[in-house]
Formats: sequence, structure tokens, C-alpha cells
Amino acid sequence: MLLTLRLKLIFVCKSSAKHMSQTNKLKIFNDPIYGFITIPDSIIFDLIEHPYFQRLRRISQMGLSNLVYPGAHHTRFHHALGCMHLMQKAINVLRTKGISINHKEEQALYIAILLHDIGHGPFSHALEGFFTPGISHEDWSLAYMKKLNKEFDGKLDLAIQIFTKTHPRNFFHQLISGQLDMDRLDYLKRDSFYTGVVEGSINSDRLIAMLNVVDDDLVIDKKGIYSIEKFLLSRRFMYWQVYLHKTGLLAEKILLKLLNRARELLKKGQLTLPQQANLIDFLKDKTYQKEDLDKYVEAYTQLDDHDVWTAIKTWQDHPDKILSELSQMILNRKLLRIEMSDKAFDTEYVAKIKQKTLDFKQVSEEEVSYFFFQGTAKNRAYNKEQEAIKVLLKNGQVTEWTNIDEQFTSVALLQTQKKYYLCYPKRILNMPERTNAD
Amino acid sequence: MLLTLRLKLIFVCKSSAKHMSQTNKLKIFNDPIYGFITIPDSIIFDLIEHPYFQRLRRISQMGLSNLVYPGAHHTRFHHALGCMHLMQKAINVLRTKGISINHKEEQALYIAILLHDIGHGPFSHALEGFFTPGISHEDWSLAYMKKLNKEFDGKLDLAIQIFTKTHPRNFFHQLISGQLDMDRLDYLKRDSFYTGVVEGSINSDRLIAMLNVVDDDLVIDKKGIYSIEKFLLSRRFMYWQVYLHKTGLLAEKILLKLLNRARELLKKGQLTLPQQANLIDFLKDKTYQKEDLDKYVEAYTQLDDHDVWTAIKTWQDHPDKILSELSQMILNRKLLRIEMSDKAFDTEYVAKIKQKTLDFKQVSEEEVSYFFFQGTAKNRAYNKEQEAIKVLLKNGQVTEWTNIDEQFTSVALLQTQKKYYLCYPKRILNMPERTNAD
Amino acid sequence: MLLTLRLKLIFVCKSSAKHMSQTNKLKIFNDPIYGFITIPDSIIFDLIEHPYFQRLRRISQMGLSNLVYPGAHHTRFHHALGCMHLMQKAINVLRTKGISINHKEEQALYIAILLHDIGHGPFSHALEGFFTPGISHEDWSLAYMKKLNKEFDGKLDLAIQIFTKTHPRNFFHQLISGQLDMDRLDYLKRDSFYTGVVEGSINSDRLIAMLNVVDDDLVIDKKGIYSIEKFLLSRRFMYWQVYLHKTGLLAEKILLKLLNRARELLKKGQLTLPQQANLIDFLKDKTYQKEDLDKYVEAYTQLDDHDVWTAIKTWQDHPDKILSELSQMILNRKLLRIEMSDKAFDTEYVAKIKQKTLDFKQVSEEEVSYFFFQGTAKNRAYNKEQEAIKVLLKNGQVTEWTNIDEQFTSVALLQTQKKYYLCYPKRILNMPERTNAD
Amino acid sequence: MLLTLRLKLIFVCKSSAKHMSQTNKLKIFNDPIYGFITIPDSIIFDLIEHPYFQRLRRISQMGLSNLVYPGAHHTRFHHALGCMHLMQKAINVLRTKGISINHKEEQALYIAILLHDIGHGPFSHALEGFFTPGISHEDWSLAYMKKLNKEFDGKLDLAIQIFTKTHPRNFFHQLISGQLDMDRLDYLKRDSFYTGVVEGSINSDRLIAMLNVVDDDLVIDKKGIYSIEKFLLSRRFMYWQVYLHKTGLLAEKILLKLLNRARELLKKGQLTLPQQANLIDFLKDKTYQKEDLDKYVEAYTQLDDHDVWTAIKTWQDHPDKILSELSQMILNRKLLRIEMSDKAFDTEYVAKIKQKTLDFKQVSEEEVSYFFFQGTAKNRAYNKEQEAIKVLLKNGQVTEWTNIDEQFTSVALLQTQKKYYLCYPKRILNMPERTNAD
Repeated sequence: MLLTLRLKLIFVCKSSAKHMSQTNKLKIFNDPIYGFITIPDSIIFDLIEHPYFQRLRRISQMGLSNLVYPGAHHTRFHHALGCMHLMQKAINVLRTKGISINHKEEQALYIAILLHDIGHGPFSHALEGFFTPGISHEDWSLAYMKKLNKEFDGKLDLAIQIFTKTHPRNFFHQLISGQLDMDRLDYLKRDSFYTGVVEGSINSDRLIAMLNVVDDDLVIDKKGIYSIEKFLLSRRFMYWQVYLHKTGLLAEKILLKLLNRARELLKKGQLTLPQQANLIDFLKDKTYQKEDLDKYVEAYTQLDDHDVWTAIKTWQDHPDKILSELSQMILNRKLLRIEMSDKAFDTEYVAKIKQKTLDFKQVSEEEVSYFFFQGTAKNRAYNKEQEAIKVLLKNGQVTEWTNIDEQFTSVALLQTQKKYYLCYPKRILNMPERTNAD
Repeated sequence: MLLTLRLKLIFVCKSSAKHMSQTNKLKIFNDPIYGFITIPDSIIFDLIEHPYFQRLRRISQMGLSNLVYPGAHHTRFHHALGCMHLMQKAINVLRTKGISINHKEEQALYIAILLHDIGHGPFSHALEGFFTPGISHEDWSLAYMKKLNKEFDGKLDLAIQIFTKTHPRNFFHQLISGQLDMDRLDYLKRDSFYTGVVEGSINSDRLIAMLNVVDDDLVIDKKGIYSIEKFLLSRRFMYWQVYLHKTGLLAEKILLKLLNRARELLKKGQLTLPQQANLIDFLKDKTYQKEDLDKYVEAYTQLDDHDVWTAIKTWQDHPDKILSELSQMILNRKLLRIEMSDKAFDTEYVAKIKQKTLDFKQVSEEEVSYFFFQGTAKNRAYNKEQEAIKVLLKNGQVTEWTNIDEQFTSVALLQTQKKYYLCYPKRILNMPERTNAD
Repeated sequence: MLLTLRLKLIFVCKSSAKHMSQTNKLKIFNDPIYGFITIPDSIIFDLIEHPYFQRLRRISQMGLSNLVYPGAHHTRFHHALGCMHLMQKAINVLRTKGISINHKEEQALYIAILLHDIGHGPFSHALEGFFTPGISHEDWSLAYMKKLNKEFDGKLDLAIQIFTKTHPRNFFHQLISGQLDMDRLDYLKRDSFYTGVVEGSINSDRLIAMLNVVDDDLVIDKKGIYSIEKFLLSRRFMYWQVYLHKTGLLAEKILLKLLNRARELLKKGQLTLPQQANLIDFLKDKTYQKEDLDKYVEAYTQLDDHDVWTAIKTWQDHPDKILSELSQMILNRKLLRIEMSDKAFDTEYVAKIKQKTLDFKQVSEEEVSYFFFQGTAKNRAYNKEQEAIKVLLKNGQVTEWTNIDEQFTSVALLQTQKKYYLCYPKRILNMPERTNAD
Repeated sequence: MLLTLRLKLIFVCKSSAKHMSQTNKLKIFNDPIYGFITIPDSIIFDLIEHPYFQRLRRISQMGLSNLVYPGAHHTRFHHALGCMHLMQKAINVLRTKGISINHKEEQALYIAILLHDIGHGPFSHALEGFFTPGISHEDWSLAYMKKLNKEFDGKLDLAIQIFTKTHPRNFFHQLISGQLDMDRLDYLKRDSFYTGVVEGSINSDRLIAMLNVVDDDLVIDKKGIYSIEKFLLSRRFMYWQVYLHKTGLLAEKILLKLLNRARELLKKGQLTLPQQANLIDFLKDKTYQKEDLDKYVEAYTQLDDHDVWTAIKTWQDHPDKILSELSQMILNRKLLRIEMSDKAFDTEYVAKIKQKTLDFKQVSEEEVSYFFFQGTAKNRAYNKEQEAIKVLLKNGQVTEWTNIDEQFTSVALLQTQKKYYLCYPKRILNMPERTNAD
């Protein structure tokens, strides 16, 4: 009943269109994870068809993680469709529990979740903030939505309200962005699936089945408390096993180093990319304002993974030794060594490694930082101050999740976990003595 | 090379057998979880064919859990095969790491893991200790092994040594029974698979890939520490979500109540099962000695799930109202109500519920305990005193798992988690006021 | 919208019920195959709770197939839930395509599919027609529906119309029983899943996505023609690899032989089952009338797999050698030998085998038929006369599937495939010469 | 035993290496399909690490199929690893059946299967033969192997013999290339997995379990005949549903058209790619000799998917309207319309469409062929003359598969299936009348 109703609305508002073209919009996508993803609406179809969205086919979901997990070549395009699929399930569950969501709201939720990540650039998170410093991918997503809203005659108004958290029904935004949003439910499942790290998989169906709404706030039914724990633990596991896997982390640090080197050389006038004027523009040291993104949208749309790869390929033979060496590292997966530890590295050990690197690479103090560097990686599974998970008790009351049961692993989940890493060439004098930190 | 060698040995020791019958012993079993399970050895084939082992086809793995998870009808038979399959993988991994395991030892490990659970009785753990009080299923398994050892002319000697922990190479026993034994790796995976509780699934392949041996002690390679955590958390999850699921727990408590009632009636001469003399024998109030089990093996082999089901079906119409009512409860899944809580129930509340039950059932103080009862369920994910998980660091040292990183969830995993439950008829005066404990 | 609407209807018609008890009826079942199965309706909940339906927990889906595929212990209970789940999907798809199905019809479809197999007896198809000769499981299903309809004040009227094909909208019945009904879509998927025979799996989601309705007739969209072929081939594969697997077939033939022997002994007064009066009644040589089943429903409800197993266990020691031997065969999986061939067996060869069996068993000509027998197994993947699969072409016309493309495998699928089998004791004089038919 | 032995050999031949670096070579890869892929040998590790092989990370397995199946972004790198994994299983199975394969042969089989596809260029089959006309990917693979053989001091000799079919043991080559080679077993499984077209999946484990060898010829055990049929049918299904899916086929035709246009423009001096000199070289109209490939290996190694993508991105704004339009088609997935039919298109209809295209595009007769074209796609599931599948009967005789049973679908499988397609702009005068061929 619901669906036929909706279709009729579509036919009405696009009355001149022929039946056949409408039917074609009822497309389904194959998805190895969910089986099928159906397009619920004509406008959703048109948005997916738009070049802005098609570009996501050329943006990898997990940056360079495929250097560690060779299956992880999935894209932002597929992730966005997956999120929309889960949103369909969530809306269905909430309606079953008596939460009213009208057709316009439903459509807006689909649009908002479909476009929530449209602003991601090449290699997604791995290069976040590099090409347009100070601008997050969410800022870009909003810029895209606004531009599309003009093109679609204001049909994205409600979706933009939801995305920018200005809609009065709080849970709409929480379904897009929050502890239990459709984004996380999909990416944890999807990333664990394509990497083959099955332990990180979550039961998105069960979590969605436990969703509820109280006073327009998203909550979890009491009997879902173990699923919440499992979800947070899976997320934590994925962080250390996959997202912050030491080799993946290293590869992404090297990628950043090499792009920074390119930016530096460009400033000095020592770098040209005759075919890639657009990339060069984004390599320049410019400042961007959130309010101003509109005028860069077209250029940004032309920027994707392939630009970066082709530049790296070009740079293999660049006269700058540092740029060419870093480029070859990525292309041939001949990376530096990385040590990772729960404790800070011994200062003396670090100094020794640095000296060995200087001796080995024969570069300046300043330039050694391309081959020798350290840092920390952090993760906190659950930040209850920022994004509390609320539980609906059987007596109707709502409480924050960690209040329920002190026997949980919540103590660990609330803590910020921190790791130290140290990177340097593999061959600095045969084999370095290993640190005791490991 | 390994395998052809082994086959040749078989051909030698059974030289009179024809080629065809040997080939037939190289059977494979389909397994929805692992794809295929191959029988590695002729003696394993003969043990599987034995009526003692075939009986396991009639012993359900998870008692009455299928009343909650309708897919959970798998048997001890399949579980035993699964364990043997994982043992093949484990031996392979350990050999790759340079641990020598000779052919006789390999065979003994297969036998020991195949038969480690052969002593389970009807409904497995749910009725453990009921039919033969004081005798564990491991005692029975040992009795079976000894009996089979006679039949197989001592070929199970080594397996028995491993099973009884009298073999000098400690890790042999640990592969059969320990924190990371093949038993657990299979049952967690299998039970999560058949119940559909995917969050409880473990990556047995990864865990096995991380196994190692130091000084004949089973250890885990350092890079497996997150997998260990994930494994312990999954086990904990399965306990509360499945093994101690409140409805499953309730059903098994009712089953025990009804069998105890039957035992009582038998003592008073008020119970006959003309067709089930064997079951009657096991219902009698006898004492059993571990050393003595040999003489009961044949009778025990005749005892399986079907005996209990048929008795319950017979008892539906038994003149004893309590027995018949409890029987109908199980058959028609019309159970009592169960409340479960992290806190002890309020004494007053309990007293009120008891009184309401007395009023409603019109039975004596003594008999009310069949319809009104309480108790606690406990689980501890990791008991490091009893079964420490040892980790092999990169420097070659071995340390207990929780020593590695205080940021783990290990604090929670080391604690014993306890829940209180209270059971009573659903309809005691319309609807009882609910306790605040929930 | 749809679902809240439906729920409101429920609340109206059961206005006295409290909110809590209603919510409890919105239960979900875990299913290893589909993830979750939700109960769409309050009456569905009540039907599932009914002892008639709970009995299906004790009826195995695949008879003795678990002697070949040890994972195949799933039940009619789970299958019925699975079918209902697929019906929910099908209704959803059809509505999306503009087919109107009102709420009452929807409910009736759920009821009809949920109960379509409720009439199955012990071991499902394996013993079909044995206990009540001339009565199919569909006859029993109808008897159950009628009985339940009285109890539920006529609420099953529409479902019964659909089941008995007396409802004017043809496709309702076709969704319950036809080439592409929800029954087949579930059992092929479920049986392939639990046996681990992955090649038999079908993509039920895709098939359902291709369903359509023209003039109240179920059709398949043109682009689904390859999926149809795949579906028929999978079904054919499952027949020969699983349903008619020679060892499974043999075991079921032996089971029938032993039950027939029991029936014979009963007639002669040589068989008693003091505890199983109900089973004895169904072993008697009675005739049943379809119109008359009503009075046997209660007795039939008490008949399940456990009765048969317990009888077999009792008969292991029966003085009749034939009965006891056949019983032991099943219990210990020490079966006869079976040869299976595409060609008829050579008459001389058959005669020789028979003579050897006579010599070996030392029984009469008449009794040798318990140990020596032959027969044929047949399967036809697609009977287009009886249940044509109709395809909706893009020009709006409808045609039978095999008309579309002569390059298909349809020629093979239309043929009846036939195999010959011959069964006899394994040890008739050492090893028999093998036939050239194999 | 086998594995420790092999490891020892490694240690001996590389005696100067430290233990640690050896252990590091015992790496495992995560694979969503098989769980884990282990590297069996030190030389395999070194080959995988080689830049020639790492390049495969940038060669997509399925060309532009991801425009239809968004999950299909897997690479030749992962496929090669998967094949090697299956080879490990196959060797294991064959040894169990008494086929002796010594350690050198085993290693050679791993090398040969690992490198069998190393010669694939950008977009794999989609552009086969475009960049180096007359040279197949197998020719390139051989060139790579020879080059690597020099670098590895002749250690690839045996692998090259196997690959080039000059090794006396026939089945070695058949495992690399033949009806049932590890290549097909992996790609069917992998492609069906990543596309989500589950019906195309095959049971590679079962097929491998059925492998056997008679007189150094690869055969299938009799009981695998249904699995063979299933395998051929799955392959056929994958061809029409995936590999020759009309939209995927269309996209690849357009890609070829645009590259041919680029080649033409280059010839006329109207095309430059200042950054992509290497690609320009391969766009030139050169001829290549198989014997000569050696000197192009380095340049070819630098050619991958990213080059093509970046060129297409550059060409979006090319002054040549045809090149720019075709480029935009691919980038924005705004393709032509394609009609596909089992029958040849009506000549008149084709002429009309062509005229409409001419009118619409306003191009010359010659140039219209970029927007209007037709062709045929063919597939034959089983070519028994070229690559017979041999079956080992129980009496020891070997026969070709289709001889066994005329009731099979083999008739259909032996036929060449042919489809006609016709492509033209979507908007040639509103909507064209549809042909009756569809």
C-alpha cells in the first residue's frame, strides 16, 4: 500500500513522463552484502544518476587499506547505496513501533543518507583535509547538497535540514550521524566484509530491529544492550586491526608525505603536471572558506583517486629524489619499517634510529623527516559525553547505556586507547636492534 | 607427501583389505560451516562408523535452545566432526611453524578430539549429571574410550593419555581441552551459525593461524592478542545471548523439574514406562562410580534425546497433575514467566509472587517449587588462574595475556558475571506488578 | 505507514488487550538464512503459538537425509516461518509494481503459507501416505486449517479459499503452490543451506524481485528468464544430489520396509507398544476419508518423529529377526548396499544377486524382499503442462518460458529423468561382481 | 611433515638469511572468500613482492563490469592469489589419492598459476589486444616469466615448461589452463562473489575434491558428474548475466571506440598526453612480435587502469567532439541504449535507427559508427573437442563427460549460444519504436 501510494505520487508530479521510463527508475543494485538494494524513489534514482554522485565510483572507501587487505577496493558509491538500504530498514522498524514518519520525511532521510558522504575526496579519510585544508568532507557534502537543491528546485530542503541538524525531530539527524547511524552500520559491515576481517562484522539487522524513538530521540530497546556492546567492541576491533593497521597507517602517512613534498616543490616552481591542471590547483597552498565552496564544486568533482595515482606514477621519475622515492614506495609497496607500541618509545632508541637514518639516506635534518617519523594513533570506542547511547527500559524510562550494568566492558570502551609508532627505512645498517617497547 | 605416506601405512597394516574398501574410507562429510570435512585416517573412519559414535546423531548439541532459536537442531555428531576438522588445521599450522608432531601423535590427536564429547547424554549440558549423578560427560567419554581401546587392540592408548593429561607434551591436551581448544573453536562457531546469532561467531581460522608451541605449551603469537580478546568477548556474548538466554534457561529448568518429579514418582511406585526399561533404570536413584562405568556403557549408549521426548509425551496424560502439566509446558512451549535481573530480587516481591503462585496453583508449599523457583546464572569469560592464555612475544618470551595491555577489556572478562532469575506462572492473578529489578 | 496502519487494525479488533501483550506479539525469530523473520500480525503470532503448529518442531524437514548430510536436522517449523518471510517480500515486490493486495488478502496469504505444510507427519515426505494411506499431507493441512478456523471464529476463511484454489485471484494460490511458490523458494534455499550443498542454492531474492502479475496470474519479468533456468537446474541438482541421494533413498526405503513389517506383525498379533497406543492406532490397517480427518486431528497431532524413533529403538530387540535387523540398520547406520544406474539392471545379474541374498540370509522368498529390492526414482524439473512458468515480455505479452529461447537447457529440464536402483546386503558372499550398469 | 621439510629446504638454500626474515615470508593474506591464503614458499613470497606482480593491484579483474555490479572492483592481484590457494588444495587432494608430486613440481605449479595472468593489461579482457595488437595476455605472461626467470637464476624453468605445455606430465598444464583449471575455479567464484550474483557461484572445494589423475591426465571421479554439469551451467550463467551483461558489454564497446578514436586522432597529430608518454607509445599504431616482448616489459609494467582513466578524464574536454562525448559517457555513466536479442535484427529496423542517429548526431557516415553499431556476442559452455572433460568410471575406465548420460543438459552446453546487439543514442527523436526482436 505504502509503495504503490508513493509511486502514484511520482506519476502525478512527473505526469508527462512515460510509464516505461518510470519503471526503469525502479532499479535494483546487486550487493554482495545485502543481496539487493532497491531504489525507493524517483528522485533518488535521479540523484544516483547525477555526475556528482557517479564520481563516487572513483573514490575508494578505505584509502590504501588494500595494500594490507587486497579485497578492500570498494568505493564510496557502494557504501552510500548500502546506507540508504539500511535506512529503508530502519524506517520500516520504527514505523512498526508506532513512530510516524511521513512520506516527505522518508524521502528526505533517503536523500540525506545517500549524500552524507558525497563530499569525500580521493582516498577518503586518508587524505581528508589535504587538498582543501580546513574543509571537512561534511562541509563538501553540504556544498554538494545545496548545489543539487538548486538543480532539483528545492526538493532537498528537508534533507539539508536533517543533515545540518536544524530539523526539530532530533532522531532524523541521529539516523544520519550519531553513535548508531546508518553510516556506521554500513561501513563496519562493509569494510569487514571486503577486508575479510570477519570478527569486525556487526549484525546491522539486529541493531536496527532494536531501534526506537522516545521524544524524537533515537534510543535502543533494553534487550539490545548486549548488541550495543558487541557493536562498540567490533568498531574498536576494526580500528586496531584494520583502520589503524600498522602497514596501512604507514602507507597513508607516506602518501601524505609525498603529497606534501609535491606541494612544497610546486611552491618552489619545481613541479609541473601538464595534464593535471585541476590537481595542481588543489595542490596549491590556498585557503578555502566553507561559505565559498560552491564555486569549487565543479573542479572538486573532477578530483578522484585516479588523479593521485597518475601523479604518483609520473613522479616515479621526478628529479627530486625524495618525491620519486616516496612514489616508488607506494607503487611497488616497498614501504618503510614501522614499529608500533602501547608505550612511548625510549628517547635514546629514537635518537639512535634517527641518526642511523641520517647516515643511511645522506639527507639534511629537515629532509630526514620524510623517511624517519613518529606519531601516535588514538581511538575511543565510546564517547558518552558527545554521543550518548540511550536505552529504553521496560518501565518506559530512558538511561545512558553505561548506567545499566557495571559488569560491562564499558570501562574499556570509554577509555581512549593510544598507540605510538615509529617509522624508518628497513635497511638502516643491516638490521636495527629492536626496541623493548614492542 | 605426508598424506600418501600415511595412506601407505594404512595399506600396510591392513594389507588384506581390498583397495576399494580402503578408498571408501576416504570419505568426506558436507558441512555448512567448513564446506567439507575429510576423514584423515582409516581408524577415524572405523570409530565414526561405530554404534557408540553413531548414537551422537541422536544427542542434540544445545539441549532445548531450539525453543528460542529454531535453527539450533545440530547434534554432537556434527560437532565432533567439526572439532576433528579444526584439529587437522591446527596440526598443519603448528608443523609449518616447525613444531614436530609425528604420525602416531597426529592420529592420537584426531581420536582424542573426535571422542572427547562422546560421553554426552540426552540434551547434552542441559541434563548433565541428572541420569548418572556425580558422573560428568568427560567421565563417560573416558569410559567409552577405554572400551573402544579394547576393541581396537590398544590403538587408542596414546589418545587416552592425551585426554587424561598424562602425556608429557602438554599442548596435546590443551588442544583437546583448554582456553583455546578445538572444542571451543568449533562449538562457538557452530552454535552461532545454527542459532543465527552472527555476533557470536569467531574466526577460528585466524585463531588457529596464531597458535604456536613453546616448551610443549600452547601459546598465541603476539599479533593474535586482539583475536584473543574478540574470542573471549564472543564467548561471553554467546553465554548471555544464547546459552543462558532466559527462555532457554527456563525451558531447561522446567525439563529438570519434570524429570525430578518423574524420579520422585518412580520412587513412590507411581510411575511406569513399560517400553522404556532402560530409561527407567537411569531414572532410579542409583549411585555411580567412575571406575565402574564400564558395565553401564551399553545401556548408556541406548539412552538419547528420543527417550526423553517419548517419556514426556507419555507423561502428558499422567495422573500426577504436576508431571503432566510440566510435560505439556515443554511440548507446547507454554512456559512459565521468567524475570532476569542483574540485582537480587527484592525479598518482599519474591514472597508476594510465591504467595500468588500458591493461591493460583492450589498446591502444597513443597509442590509449589515446581512452578515457582529462583536461582542465579553465572559466567566468567576468562579464568586466568585455571586456564591462562599465554602469549609469545616477539622477543621470544611468554607472558599471560592480561599482562600485555591494561587498556584491554580484560578487567570485565576476568570478572564473574552473575544474573538472578525468578520463575512463576504467567497468569497468577492477571498480571503481576513488575519488579523494579529489571 | 502500511505497518502502523495494520497494527492499528489489530488494536481495534482486540481492543481489550493491553499494549504490552500486543508488543510481545511483534516477535522476531533468528534465522541463519534470512537473518531475522518478523511476525507480521497478531493472528500469525497466535497460530504459531498453537500446539498444532508447535508440533512441527518435532517433524524433521528432510526425513533421514541427515544420515548423509549431518547438518540436515532442520524442521518443518522453521521452514514454515521461512516461507512466510518470503511471502512478506513477495507481497512487497508486487505492490511496488502496482498490484493491489489489501490488508485482509495479505493476512490470508500469510496464514495460507504458514499452514500449507502443517499436515506433514513424521519424517515428512519420507513417510508420506504410510500412516494414513490415501491421505496426502495437503489433505491433513486442510483439515488443520478448518479446525483452526473454527477456533479462530472464521478468520481463516480467506486463507482456506486461497489454499483450496477457490479464490478468484489465481496468483494467490500460485504463491502458495506452483512452480515459483514461496514453499519451493524456501525449501531449496533451506535444504541446500543445512546440507551444505551450496550448488543447490537459489537466489530467492532475485526470483521474488522478478515476480509480477498479469490478469491475476503470476508471471516472471522477461529479464528473469536466466534466473528461472538457474532455479530449475538447482532444483534438479538437489533432487539427484540430495533428495534422491542413493544412501538417503536407501535409508528411507529401509525405514518404510521396517514400518511395513511392524504393521504386518501387528496384524498377526505379534507386536505391542505398550506406551505408544497412538502410534499403534496409526500402524493399524485402517482406511481414512478426507472428509473425516477432523476426528483424527488430535491423535495425529500427537504423532511425530520421536514416536518412530522410540519404536525403532524398542524393536531393536524384537523377537522378529527381520524387524530387529532393519531397526538396527537405521539406528547404527549399517545399511544395505545400493547400486544406482541410468540403465535398467541386467535380469541375470539381478537374479544372481537375489539368489546370493537368499543364500546369505536364509529367509523365505517372501521375506527376502526386506533385504533385496529394486525400484526406480524419477524426477522432472519442469512440467510445463501442469505448472507452466509464464514470462512477461517487454511488449506486454505473456508466453510460456520454454517458448522464449530454444538454446536453453529446457529440453533436458522438460524430460523425466529416471534412475534404477538395486539394494541387497553388503556381505552376500564376500564381494559381489559389480554390474556393468554402473 | 611435508611443510617442515619444505621450510628446511628454504633455510638451506638461503642459509645466510636470518630466521626472522624467513618467518616474515610465511605471510598470510585475508580473503573474503577463502578466509586466509597462505604463502607456501619463500620464492612465492619474493615473486609477489616483485613490482611486476604488485602492478596487478592496479589492474581490475572485470573491466567495466562495476558500472553494472558496483561491488566488482577486485583486481588481478587478488585473483592470482586465489588461484594459488586453490592449487594448494588441488595438490593436497591429488596426493591423498596417491598421485606423487614432488616438492620441485609443487613449487613450479604454484609459480605457474601465480603468474599465469600476470600479462593482463588495463581492464583485463575488456581491452585485450588493443594496446599491443596480436599479442594475447598469455604471450605477455610468458614474457614476464622469462624475464623473472633470469632474475631468479632459472628457478622458474619448470614453471615455464608447465605453462607452455612442454612438460611431459600433462595434468600440470591442465591445472593451469583447461576446463577445470584453478583459474576458472577461482574467477567464477570470485566474480560471482564480488558482483553479488550468487547463482553463478561454484563449489570449488567439491570440484577439487573430485579431481584425479590417470596416466598423467586430469580426470574427474565418477561421482562428480553432477558437479561438472553445475560448474558448466554456472559458467554459462555468468557469461550471460555478468560477463556479457548488456550494459557492461556496451560500456566496454564504448571504451574501445573511444580508445580507437584516440589512436586515430594521434595518427592525425591531433592528440597529445604530455604526462603520459608511455600510454601514447602504446596508443601508436605499432606491430609487436611475441619473440620481442622482452624489450617492452618495463614499459608495459607501467601501464595500468589509472592511465586509461586519467586519459579519459583529460579527453572530456578534448576539442574532438566524438572523443570528448565518448569520454563523458564512461565517466558519467550516460551510455547509449543497447538492445539485445536472440534473433538477428530486422534490416529495415536497423536502417531506420541508423538514419535517426545520423539525423540526431549530425555526423558523417563514417563517424556515425561511434554512436551507432551492432554486433554479436557468443558463448559456448563446453567445447568438448578442444578441452574434453574426462571422467574416471568406477571400473577404472576413462570417458568423455557427455558420453555418460544423455539425459544431461549437455546438448545445450555443447551449443554455441549467440546474441545480437544494437547500440544507438537514447534520445534519437524522443523514443524509437521498439523492435519485435526483443
